[in-house]
Amino acid sequence: MRDERFADFRPELSAAQRRAPVVFLANIDPALQGAVLDQFEAPTLVACDTMNHWIESTRAPLVALLPRVDLLILNDEEARLLSGEKNVARAARRILALGPKSVLVKRGEYGAILFSAESVFAVPAYPLEEVFDPTGAGDAFAGGVIGYLTATGERTEAGLRRGIVYGSVLASFIVEDFGGQRLRTLARDDIERRYRQFVALTEF
Amino acid sequence: MRDERFADFRPELSAAQRRAPVVFLANIDPALQGAVLDQFEAPTLVACDTMNHWIESTRAPLVALLPRVDLLILNDEEARLLSGEKNVARAARRILALGPKSVLVKRGEYGAILFSAESVFAVPAYPLEEVFDPTGAGDAFAGGVIGYLTATGERTEAGLRRGIVYGSVLASFIVEDFGGQRLRTLARDDIERRYRQFVALTEF
Repeated sequence: MRDERFADFRPELSAAQRRAPVVFLANIDPALQGAVLDQFEAPTLVACDTMNHWIESTRAPLVALLPRVDLLILNDEEARLLSGEKNVARAARRILALGPKSVLVKRGEYGAILFSAESVFAVPAYPLEEVFDPTGAGDAFAGGVIGYLTATGERTEAGLRRGIVYGSVLASFIVEDFGGQRLRTLARDDIERRYRQFVALTEF
Repeated sequence: MRDERFADFRPELSAAQRRAPVVFLANIDPALQGAVLDQFEAPTLVACDTMNHWIESTRAPLVALLPRVDLLILNDEEARLLSGEKNVARAARRILALGPKSVLVKRGEYGAILFSAESVFAVPAYPLEEVFDPTGAGDAFAGGVIGYLTATGERTEAGLRRGIVYGSVLASFIVEDFGGQRLRTLARDDIERRYRQFVALTEF
């Protein structure tokens, strides 16, 4: 079932776009995500976001898309909805059984947790004293993860873990101002400094 | 205001007990916790647990006790109640201002977070697929932290962090069976193996 809002939206990628090594299928109708993915020649990393609306109303095309996905990014509520399991670890196991190589569950102020067949990685959110506006935190998080993997070309578990920490860094900044405003003033140094704060926050 | 249930309970420690280096004031009327603490000669670590009942009904003696505490252990709801702050980082700052050297906030399935004047440390809970009974998880956690610090004599921030991971290990086992039953069969090897799993869970 196609969402009416996207009835006439059929993105056609340019030849250069089709050769991109990294694909991030942002949150939209999974049939459209699939049609976009079809156009890439040989991506080395396919990440995918989704939400409750698609899980509930377009489940079949979403499930059909999952075996083509390396990294599925969703929040804990969406993971429960997709799997029918309340426990996050069981939910992730069920979703992995649908085909994605790894499942990255966003847990808001509690951080994020990555599940794959071989391992689990958990990172806390940065404990900020002032959270101004959480809008866009999930997108900044995904953007940070994908941006790091694109910039470095890393495809190992260790690289993915570092990418998730960079995603957490980006999300921690985005909540400090309205919407995406904070990105306008954010410098590379700020990002690296907070990455080191994540190291200090978690090392034992 | 003294709770009636403990009206006649005035523990008298033996000479050997008074020389103990580590004191854990488990969850009870803070006036009693203070009267017990008074009996120790020169403890090098004083940890303290509490709960909503004492925060609400015996706030003054609890607040009077806090400057004598090195490590206050409470859950996120109790931290909010004691501080009047919803945000966990602001709640912890307010509680630190009351005098304890550090505040360890338990967050159930999301792990724990330690605040002191100089640093913050967060550790996730182990993502178990089967949680049988959460009863006693908080006590096992505190017991693991204090037990590690007692056994090793460590008093550094790094030592406290390792202790918190051992506490998290103990809590992760306790929820696998009814009440404290799991402790009957738990071997040292199991504990060390899961400690290494916590390293693998969190390293990046």
